[in-house]
Amino acid sequence: MIEAIQNHRSIRKFKPDAVEEGLLYELLRAGTRASTTGNMQVYSIIVSQQAEMKKKLWEIHFRQNMVLEAPLILTFNADFNRFSKWCELRKAIPGYDNFLSFTTAFIDALLASQNVALEAENNGLGICYLGTTTYNADKICDLFHLPKGVVPVTTLVIGYPAEIPELTDRLPLEAIVHQETYHDYSQEQIDKIYADRENSELTRQLLKINNKETLAQIFTESRYAKKDNLVFSKKYLEVIEKQGFMNND
Amino acid sequence: MIEAIQNHRSIRKFKPDAVEEGLLYELLRAGTRASTTGNMQVYSIIVSQQAEMKKKLWEIHFRQNMVLEAPLILTFNADFNRFSKWCELRKAIPGYDNFLSFTTAFIDALLASQNVALEAENNGLGICYLGTTTYNADKICDLFHLPKGVVPVTTLVIGYPAEIPELTDRLPLEAIVHQETYHDYSQEQIDKIYADRENSELTRQLLKINNKETLAQIFTESRYAKKDNLVFSKKYLEVIEKQGFMNND
Repeated sequence: MIEAIQNHRSIRKFKPDAVEEGLLYELLRAGTRASTTGNMQVYSIIVSQQAEMKKKLWEIHFRQNMVLEAPLILTFNADFNRFSKWCELRKAIPGYDNFLSFTTAFIDALLASQNVALEAENNGLGICYLGTTTYNADKICDLFHLPKGVVPVTTLVIGYPAEIPELTDRLPLEAIVHQETYHDYSQEQIDKIYADRENSELTRQLLKINNKETLAQIFTESRYAKKDNLVFSKKYLEVIEKQGFMNND
Repeated sequence: MIEAIQNHRSIRKFKPDAVEEGLLYELLRAGTRASTTGNMQVYSIIVSQQAEMKKKLWEIHFRQNMVLEAPLILTFNADFNRFSKWCELRKAIPGYDNFLSFTTAFIDALLASQNVALEAENNGLGICYLGTTTYNADKICDLFHLPKGVVPVTTLVIGYPAEIPELTDRLPLEAIVHQETYHDYSQEQIDKIYADRENSELTRQLLKINNKETLAQIFTESRYAKKDNLVFSKKYLEVIEKQGFMNND
């Protein structure tokens, strides 16, 4: 298996060493080699290295320390702005202010981000994705002055690791993979799929720390609670609309 | 650079040779090593190898020949079904029937797909992404009997290549990358960014074949026309709602 794939773990503690400029450009080039719809490359990447910008991003990303610590933050956007501007300058009328185009650009941005992540790890760097990008996309739009046609999708924090955590466990393949058609899960199958994780020492510790009866409750009541999801759902849909991707008629 | 990243080209013609079962599982395992939100793995992968299913997928994906030719088709779904079922069986009330959760699962599915794509290429296989997955997601839901909480996101066709096309050109990095803040594009910058592509022999051929004045018109009038985007925007939003991801209140 590609070593960077095999050895991936999210890194949340970083040495202060900067990512060399040549290496940064190699990572970005790796991003641009990813598959992209019709070779349109409908994404953009914003590089944050200055302390002032990183501090603002730290505020936006729920003050997670790694955002301050990591020397390099890359924000990936779904971006039809450049492509549409090009169309307008070439006697072509762009029709990309709709939800399908948003999903197209969203996909493009993520395939590029995963290439960058793997290429970073291939060069001894550590990475972590920030899911909080969609939560506070409105603030990211303001911070970076994103024009219409641009919506933040994900963020990578990157730097030389100051920790090497254990590989994270994953569910057995049968939890993820379906042969020929979707086979919905029985209670027995769910029990089996989650057995190893639920019986692990890590889970025992988490239940104690969080004072919960089941691991699932840590997700539904603390980490990814419904009330938060509802707030951020509305906000992200508003961002998509404000940035001009909801003209579907 | 990771060889599979450096050498990626989309493959649309395949030899008939099957992908060995052991290799298939290695690809799927590579997918599961990708970053995933909170280690929830909120995606699923449907494996299609039977001729009958591939023929149905070929119809759905606009009868692109590669779907019939490739021995292996993988459909990646945003999937909160398994996770929510687990929550319900563990005295936890899932709150993932909203748009934010959809985007979370959408991201998970794409990071896994790009790992699978690269690992396939690393083993001498060729791949192509099918953007038509979001276009006809309703039909894919029907074909695979996808339950609530599951929405198709992207598809990979995979097989041993029967062609080795040239690497596709990409825009210069300055077209994609912004330092510290977003710098919108002037006409001069757009001209410069697209100059090489517009002056290429390939573009000259495309303009002739398509009988258009500019390359951009091929995109706006033929390949990704507004009227089609509007049809498929509505359809995909309906799928997201029908599959239970639009309860945002």
